[in-house]
Amino acid sequence: MKVHLDCYPCFVRQALTTARLFSTDEASVRRIVAAACRKLGSLPEGGAPPEISREIYRTIRRISGVADPYRDLKRRSIEQARRLLPGLRRLIEGSANPLLAAARISVAGNVIDFGVDADFDLEKEVESVVSRPFGIDDSPGFLEAVRTARKILYVGDNAGESVLDRLLIERLNRPVTYAVRESPIINDVTREEARESGLSGIARIISCGTAAPGVILARASKAFLRAWKEADLIISKGQGNYECLSEEPRPIFFLLKAKCTVIAGHLGVRLGDFIIARAGRTRNPPGK
Amino acid sequence: MKVHLDCYPCFVRQALTTARLFSTDEASVRRIVAAACRKLGSLPEGGAPPEISREIYRTIRRISGVADPYRDLKRRSIEQARRLLPGLRRLIEGSANPLLAAARISVAGNVIDFGVDADFDLEKEVESVVSRPFGIDDSPGFLEAVRTARKILYVGDNAGESVLDRLLIERLNRPVTYAVRESPIINDVTREEARESGLSGIARIISCGTAAPGVILARASKAFLRAWKEADLIISKGQGNYECLSEEPRPIFFLLKAKCTVIAGHLGVRLGDFIIARAGRTRNPPGK
Repeated sequence: MKVHLDCYPCFVRQALTTARLFSTDEASVRRIVAAACRKLGSLPEGGAPPEISREIYRTIRRISGVADPYRDLKRRSIEQARRLLPGLRRLIEGSANPLLAAARISVAGNVIDFGVDADFDLEKEVESVVSRPFGIDDSPGFLEAVRTARKILYVGDNAGESVLDRLLIERLNRPVTYAVRESPIINDVTREEARESGLSGIARIISCGTAAPGVILARASKAFLRAWKEADLIISKGQGNYECLSEEPRPIFFLLKAKCTVIAGHLGVRLGDFIIARAGRTRNPPGK
Repeated sequence: MKVHLDCYPCFVRQALTTARLFSTDEASVRRIVAAACRKLGSLPEGGAPPEISREIYRTIRRISGVADPYRDLKRRSIEQARRLLPGLRRLIEGSANPLLAAARISVAGNVIDFGVDADFDLEKEVESVVSRPFGIDDSPGFLEAVRTARKILYVGDNAGESVLDRLLIERLNRPVTYAVRESPIINDVTREEARESGLSGIARIISCGTAAPGVILARASKAFLRAWKEADLIISKGQGNYECLSEEPRPIFFLLKAKCTVIAGHLGVRLGDFIIARAGRTRNPPGK
């Protein structure tokens, strides 16, 4: 999906939030936010929101010299999610359909996001996700796709959420390739956080090739593009990946929480809804 | 007060809202929002928020060629407020302290604002304002200041609110100079809307000298500066004027609704609170 103009104020807010992570000096923060505004106003038309985020965070990195302002937050999110693991494993094992329960829990993990809305309660979301009705629920199709899949590409989103992805990957019983961001971008999962989340032992980890909060296919790595073509099931986590991949004619299931009005509108669901959606069925008219 | 970095996303949102008023073509809207972002990122440090708004709306006007995108909305706000007049006059006449009731109703009028939050319910606000506790209530001081005043300067804010200002001016029983914006800026009151609000007959109307959503003293007209110096009571309506005048050592009372978190924080009140505040007592430490 192309960027929506309603995303513009949000890009500025994100730049401000990020700058404040590594500076308490308002003059420095101002310099970064002003540069982000100039960059935002100078970008060529078109592109998905993660392409714009990528440019803005490049600007922030260049001016600040800080490569990974979210490093501490990412570590803490991973620790927080790891503490939930034993309870969640028992929940999955005790449920009528453990694979479905694991899928739903991985959707709840998508609540961890310092880009869109830093105000979340992981434990509360996890509790509600197992029983709560989803805004779009293509889980029967998802379960069937897992059953017949031979190669699965799993496109990760945020650090911490990656720990809950592990619970789903453990239940897939198929060879899984887990794609991470090439280098730090907001609180997204990179190779480092994937390892800290315990994913190294259960999936092949590859980089998608760019530092954007969503996979930009035009900038994707060869390894990613190979996995993308070879997979007969692609699990895409989160809004950023949805924004980049929603119109791709591939066997994708989008697992996410609709955290902003633009995405909720595009999907035709309510703000805050959980989603397991097959690609194609989520497509709205262009411009929406 | 100097602009707060939290205002930056809001400036971009305001540019978007304004552009959408006169264009349904997303490419044109995008061009305007992008130009507003570049301008915002290029402004020198410092200045109150209305000084930045002034620059951004100049950019919007220059690119769009539209001088007064809010003209229709202003007219409708005035009509809506005029319909409430008979009922409000009865309310004021029937109250124990008509001057106080009129002051409170003029504060409720400040809810009309397409700059900060276009989602308001004038009738509901007016109903609640007469009895509801204020976030800051310096009304005893205000009533005393009116009693002893010889010359009153009344600095208007939004069109429509201006109709409710009339009810207060009618109760002041003093010579009142009513200051309006020099030319259209958002939905603020200009000479034209002051006339449509029925203010011509009961106050001397002057221009403050600039098209900013707040009085910028450094750019004020001679007529305004004379009235500013001669007045022994200055009634300042709304957030924009507060942002420009909050630190001035003059006998000012600020009548407004705290419609954004930055202003609420600066005043030390809750978001949505109504305020009648004497200048000086509202001053927070610099940087807040």
